[in-house]
Amino acid sequence: MNPDILKERQNATFDVEKLTNMLDGGPEKTKRRREIESMVLNDPDFKEEDPNFLSRSERYDQAVRKSALMILKLREYGIADPEEIYCYKNLVHPDRPEPLDLHLGMFLPTLLNQATPEQMDRFFMPAWNLEIIGTYAQTEMGHGTHLRGLETTATYDPATQEFVLNSPTISSIKWWPGGLGKTSNHAVVLAQLHTQGNNHGLHAFLVQIRDMKTHLPLPGIVVGDIGPKFGFVEVDNGFLKLENVRIPRDNMLMKYAKVEPDGTYLKPPSAKLTYGTMVFVRSMIVGESARALSKACTIVIRYSAVRHQSEIRAGEPEPQILDYQTQQYKLFPLLATAYAFHFVSQYMKETYHRISGDISGGDFSELPELHALAAGLKAFTTWVTNAGIEVCRMSCGGHGYSHSSALPNIYVDFTPACTYEGENTVMMLQTARYLVKCYRQAKAGQRLSGIVSYLNEADHQSVRPQPVAAGTTGVDINDLASLVEIYKRRAAILIELAAKSIQQELQHKSQEEAWNANAIDLVRASDAHCHYVVVKIFTEKVGQIENAEIHSVLSDLGLLYALHGITNNSGDFLQAGLLRVPQVLQISGRIKQLLSQLRPNAVALVDSFDFNDRKLNSVLGRYDGNVYEHMFEWARRSPLNNTEVHESFHKYLKPLRSKL
Amino acid sequence: MNPDILKERQNATFDVEKLTNMLDGGPEKTKRRREIESMVLNDPDFKEEDPNFLSRSERYDQAVRKSALMILKLREYGIADPEEIYCYKNLVHPDRPEPLDLHLGMFLPTLLNQATPEQMDRFFMPAWNLEIIGTYAQTEMGHGTHLRGLETTATYDPATQEFVLNSPTISSIKWWPGGLGKTSNHAVVLAQLHTQGNNHGLHAFLVQIRDMKTHLPLPGIVVGDIGPKFGFVEVDNGFLKLENVRIPRDNMLMKYAKVEPDGTYLKPPSAKLTYGTMVFVRSMIVGESARALSKACTIVIRYSAVRHQSEIRAGEPEPQILDYQTQQYKLFPLLATAYAFHFVSQYMKETYHRISGDISGGDFSELPELHALAAGLKAFTTWVTNAGIEVCRMSCGGHGYSHSSALPNIYVDFTPACTYEGENTVMMLQTARYLVKCYRQAKAGQRLSGIVSYLNEADHQSVRPQPVAAGTTGVDINDLASLVEIYKRRAAILIELAAKSIQQELQHKSQEEAWNANAIDLVRASDAHCHYVVVKIFTEKVGQIENAEIHSVLSDLGLLYALHGITNNSGDFLQAGLLRVPQVLQISGRIKQLLSQLRPNAVALVDSFDFNDRKLNSVLGRYDGNVYEHMFEWARRSPLNNTEVHESFHKYLKPLRSKL
Repeated sequence: MNPDILKERQNATFDVEKLTNMLDGGPEKTKRRREIESMVLNDPDFKEEDPNFLSRSERYDQAVRKSALMILKLREYGIADPEEIYCYKNLVHPDRPEPLDLHLGMFLPTLLNQATPEQMDRFFMPAWNLEIIGTYAQTEMGHGTHLRGLETTATYDPATQEFVLNSPTISSIKWWPGGLGKTSNHAVVLAQLHTQGNNHGLHAFLVQIRDMKTHLPLPGIVVGDIGPKFGFVEVDNGFLKLENVRIPRDNMLMKYAKVEPDGTYLKPPSAKLTYGTMVFVRSMIVGESARALSKACTIVIRYSAVRHQSEIRAGEPEPQILDYQTQQYKLFPLLATAYAFHFVSQYMKETYHRISGDISGGDFSELPELHALAAGLKAFTTWVTNAGIEVCRMSCGGHGYSHSSALPNIYVDFTPACTYEGENTVMMLQTARYLVKCYRQAKAGQRLSGIVSYLNEADHQSVRPQPVAAGTTGVDINDLASLVEIYKRRAAILIELAAKSIQQELQHKSQEEAWNANAIDLVRASDAHCHYVVVKIFTEKVGQIENAEIHSVLSDLGLLYALHGITNNSGDFLQAGLLRVPQVLQISGRIKQLLSQLRPNAVALVDSFDFNDRKLNSVLGRYDGNVYEHMFEWARRSPLNNTEVHESFHKYLKPLRSKL
Repeated sequence: MNPDILKERQNATFDVEKLTNMLDGGPEKTKRRREIESMVLNDPDFKEEDPNFLSRSERYDQAVRKSALMILKLREYGIADPEEIYCYKNLVHPDRPEPLDLHLGMFLPTLLNQATPEQMDRFFMPAWNLEIIGTYAQTEMGHGTHLRGLETTATYDPATQEFVLNSPTISSIKWWPGGLGKTSNHAVVLAQLHTQGNNHGLHAFLVQIRDMKTHLPLPGIVVGDIGPKFGFVEVDNGFLKLENVRIPRDNMLMKYAKVEPDGTYLKPPSAKLTYGTMVFVRSMIVGESARALSKACTIVIRYSAVRHQSEIRAGEPEPQILDYQTQQYKLFPLLATAYAFHFVSQYMKETYHRISGDISGGDFSELPELHALAAGLKAFTTWVTNAGIEVCRMSCGGHGYSHSSALPNIYVDFTPACTYEGENTVMMLQTARYLVKCYRQAKAGQRLSGIVSYLNEADHQSVRPQPVAAGTTGVDINDLASLVEIYKRRAAILIELAAKSIQQELQHKSQEEAWNANAIDLVRASDAHCHYVVVKIFTEKVGQIENAEIHSVLSDLGLLYALHGITNNSGDFLQAGLLRVPQVLQISGRIKQLLSQLRPNAVALVDSFDFNDRKLNSVLGRYDGNVYEHMFEWARRSPLNNTEVHESFHKYLKPLRSKL
C-alpha cells in the first residue's frame, strides 16, 4: 500500500465500515452485497479484456457473451430479487450499460404491467428464457420527450383483425432504443392508435422484428444500429422503420386500454397509471447520479492523496495535492453533493414505495407531488453530477484524459441521463408548472400539504428589494436548520416572482406565450425548489445519525453543501434580503474552515462508498494507491504497442523520403 | 435547402459576407482562405473514411497517410506561410490533432529558436524533409505544469564528451508527447542538466530514439503509445524511458546556455527568452477556444432552426426550438462568447507581434504583463469553452450524443486545452501573483501602466459593504462602456480583498501558507480580471465597426455578453455595491429583450464563421439543414450494420436457448 494513502486511513476520525453500513441500509445489506459481488469477482468466466483496447464490434461481442452467461448464472444461484440482480449485473458489466438492459429493465416489466393474462402466457416465459429478446421502442428520430409528437402509426384493420404499423416519415423512424439494433427479435412499439377513423393516442404493441431461427429482419422491417456514440459503446442502440407491418389484434398490450374485434376502442380506467413507472425510473436516475459522482470522487480524492506536485513552501518536499485549497474547493463540495444525492435517492425510493401502495389501492392523491419532484430532481441531480464528473476528471491533471483513469467512461456513460427519460430543461419546466399551480392554489386560499406547503406562507414574504448592506438577518450560518429555512424562502420568492411575472404578461399575451416569455425564471424557480429539497433531506438524514463521529463529519459535509450552494447563488440570497453582505463574507471564511476540517477524513469518506477496485477499473482510483506502476503496465498493453513499428511507417513515412 | 433555414437566412438584417471578412481580417484574407480550403476539398487524395467508423489503429494509419501526403502537397503548391499551412492542415485533418503536430509545431520551431548554426546544419534540413521526425518530450508521468519537478537527468561525462540521459524513477518516464509513441525517430528531451556536480535545471537535448532504417527503438530506449484517451485518437501520445542513453555533447541545444567540453556550464543571457514561446502558444489556445465554440454554436443553432418540437400553443404546429426562450438563453450567450473570444484572440495576436519586436530588440518591459494575461486568458477561455461545448451538445437533444453530430469529438479534442500548456488553476494563480504584485506596487505609490492601470485607483474604492437595496448606482445597463467600468471595479475590489486577506494572514502564517489559504479568492480575482479584459476588448472592437447593420447586431451581442456575465455573478456586483437590486431585476428583463432581438440573426451570425460542411463534418450542422435524411444514411454505414446478423447471435444467444 502506498504510504501516503495508508496515513490518510490512519488519520480518519470515524469507522469507515459503519458509514458503509449506513449507506447500504444496514450491516446485513453490506454483507449480502459483498457476497453477490464476490460471486462475480471469483468467477473466471467473467474475466474480460479491457474494453478500452477493443473495437466496437468486439466490445459488443464481449458484452453479449457476458450477458448470456449472466442469465444462466443468476438462475443457477437463484438470484431473483431485482436489487440483487442489479448488483450482480453491475459487477458483470462494471457499471456499463449492456445490450440486454432494455430487455430486463423495460421489456419484461412492461409485459408484467400491461399484458393481459393471455398475453403473459404467450410472451412472458419465452422472454424470461431469452427466446424472445425484446426492447422498448418509443423514441423516434424526430421526437423524444414530447410524446404527443411521436408519429409511428398502428391502424386497425377489422377485416383481418390486425394492426398495420407504419413509419410514415423519416423523422418517425424509431431511434435510440437499446438492444434494438442487433440483439432483439421483438419490440414493444409505441404508436398512435388509429381505429374507426379516430386517433386514440399512444399505445403499446408487441412486434416481432426478426426471425426466431435465422435472426434475419422480417419483411417490412428495416432495423440496424444507429452508429457510434458518446458512451454506451457496448449497446446496440437501434433504428426501426416499419413498412406496413401487420400484427394480430391481440398483440396490442391490452391490460388497460382495449380494441375490440370490430375496432371499438375502450379507454383505460386512469391516465395516471403510467405515471408510476416514470416516477420509479426517474428516482432510479437520482440514484445513478449519486453513484456516478461517488465513483468520480473516489478516483480523484484517492489520486490527490498520492499525487505530489509543485510547492507550497520553497525547498520543502512537494505536498500532496489534496493539501491545496483550490483542490479541496473543487472536490469536497462534490463529495458533499455525492452524499446529498445518495440521501435524496434513499428518500425517493422510500417515498415511492410508500405511495405505490396507495396507488395500487386507487389513491392517486400524492402522485402529482412525487411526479413533479421526480422530474425536477432527475434534472437537478443529473446536471450537477454531469458537470461534477468533469471537474473530478480535470482535477487529475493530464491523467484524467487517459482511459486508464476510468473517468472519461464514467462521464460518457453518465451524461445521456441529462437527456433520456425526459430532457432536463423540459423536466424543470414540468416541475415549475406544478409549483406555479400550487402557488396559485395557495393564493386562492387553498391549504397545501406536503413538500410544497411552504407556499402557504408565500403571502407573508416580500419580493421587494431588501436592505442588504449592514447588520444581520437572524440567520445562523452554522445551523443547518437555519439554512434550510433560507433555501426554502429563496425558492418561495423565486416561484412567486415567476408566477407574478406570468400574471402580468397575461394582460397582453396568451397563456402559452406568457409561459414561454418567463421560461428562464421558471427553470430558476424549479432549480431553487430542488436545491431546497436536497438541503432539507440532507439535514434530516444527518439528524438521524446516532454514531457521534459519523454524525460530526456528515454535519460538516451537510454544512459545506449548504454554504457552498449559497455562495454559488449569493445574488439570489442578497437580492431577496435573506442574507446581508457581512454574512456572505463570513460564509466564504466558514467554507475555508470546513475544507480544512474535512481534509483528514476525505479518503475515509470515499472509502466508505466501498467500490471494489474491479468495479472502478481505474489506475488512479486504486485502493492501494500504487498508481504509476499500474499506469505504465496498462499503457504497455495498448494495442498500438502490439508491434514495435506500426505498419504505417513502411507504407507512408519511409517511401516519402525519396519524394522530398 | 431546408425551408426553415432558408427563411432564417432571408430574415437576417446584415450582410453575412461582410462579417466573415471582418472575422478573417479583410476580404482578401477570406478569398485566400477559401482558395486554400478548396485545394484540399477538390483533392481526391484527401478523401477519407469517416474516422468514427474505424479502429484506433486504422485512424492512426489514415492520419499518417494524410500527413505524409500533406507535406508533399504543401511543397508542390509552395505554401510556406505558417498561417496558410495551418489553414491547409485544418482541412486535411478537419480540426483534428494528428501525429505530426508536434514535429511541425514544436520540434521544428525549437530547432529554429534554440539550435546553434552547426546544429541547424545537422538537423534542420533532414527534419524539414521528414527523415528526422521529432517530438518535444517535456511532460513526465509525475509532472507537467510544475517544470521544476521534472526528474529526467542528463549528466555530462567529460571523459567521452557525452551526456548520459536517464529516467531515474517510474514517475520520471516521459509521458504524453504527441507523435512520440510510434511516429518519431527523434525527440527534444527536457532534462535536468548535471555537470561538475551541479544541477543547472532544465535544458533541451536532441535524442535519437529509433533507428533511421528499421524504425526500431535504439538500445536503452523504451518507447510506446500511452494507450487510448478521451480524444486525440489519431495521435500516438507516447512514453519514453531512458536507460543510460548517451548522446554527444553537441546534441544539447546550445544557442543560449552551453556546456563546454570540460563540463563548464555557461548561463543563458536571459531567463525570459523562453517566455515568448509560452505566450505565443497560449494566445493560440485562446484562438482555439474561439474556433471550437464557434463550431459548436454553428451546429446547434442551425439544428435548432430546423428542429421542431413540442408546443408553445396547443393545437398549433410545433415551433422551431430556436423559438423557446430557454433554448435562446442557453445558446445566444455562448454565441456572444464565441465572438468575444475571437476578438480577444485577435487582440492577443496583435499584441504579441507588437511586443515580440521589442523582445528581439532586448526590451522585455511589456512581457510580464502579456505573460500574466496570456496565462489567465488561456484558463478563462478554455474553461468557458469547455463547458459551453457541452451545453451546445446537450441542447441538441439525443442526437448530440451521436458521433454524427460531431459535437462529442469537438469536446474531447478540445477539453485537454484546460490542462496542457499550463493547468488552468495554476494559470489563474500565476495571473493572480502578477495582479497582487501590481496591487502592492500601486499601494506603494508606483504608477502602473497598461491593462492593470486600474489598480492605481484601488485606494479610492471601498470593499466595505454597500447599501444594495434601493436607488441606482449611476450605471447605465444599456451602455457597454458603463458596464466595462463596473467589471473593472469588480476586478479591483476582488484583487484588493484577496491581497488584504493575505496581508492579514501573514501575521501568523508564512508567505506560502498565507497564499495557499487564500487561493480560492485569488482564482476568483484572476477570473474577474480576465472577465473585465474580455468585456473591454469586445467593447473596443464593437466601437471600431463601421458597417451600421453589423455594428448594431454586434452591439447587441456585446451587451448580452456583458449582462449575462453580470447575472451569473450578481452576488459580486451586489456585494460591492456596484449594482442595486432593481438594476439586477432590470438586467434580467433586458437580457430577455436581447434574446428576442438577436433571434432573427442567430443563423446568420453562425453562417458568418464560414465553416465548410466538410470541416464541420456534422449531420446536425449541415448548411442545407437536411438533417434527418443524412443521419439515417450515416447510421446505415455504421460497421455494426455490415452484416444483418452479428456473429454474437450464433455464438452466444442461440446456444443459450437450449440451456435455459
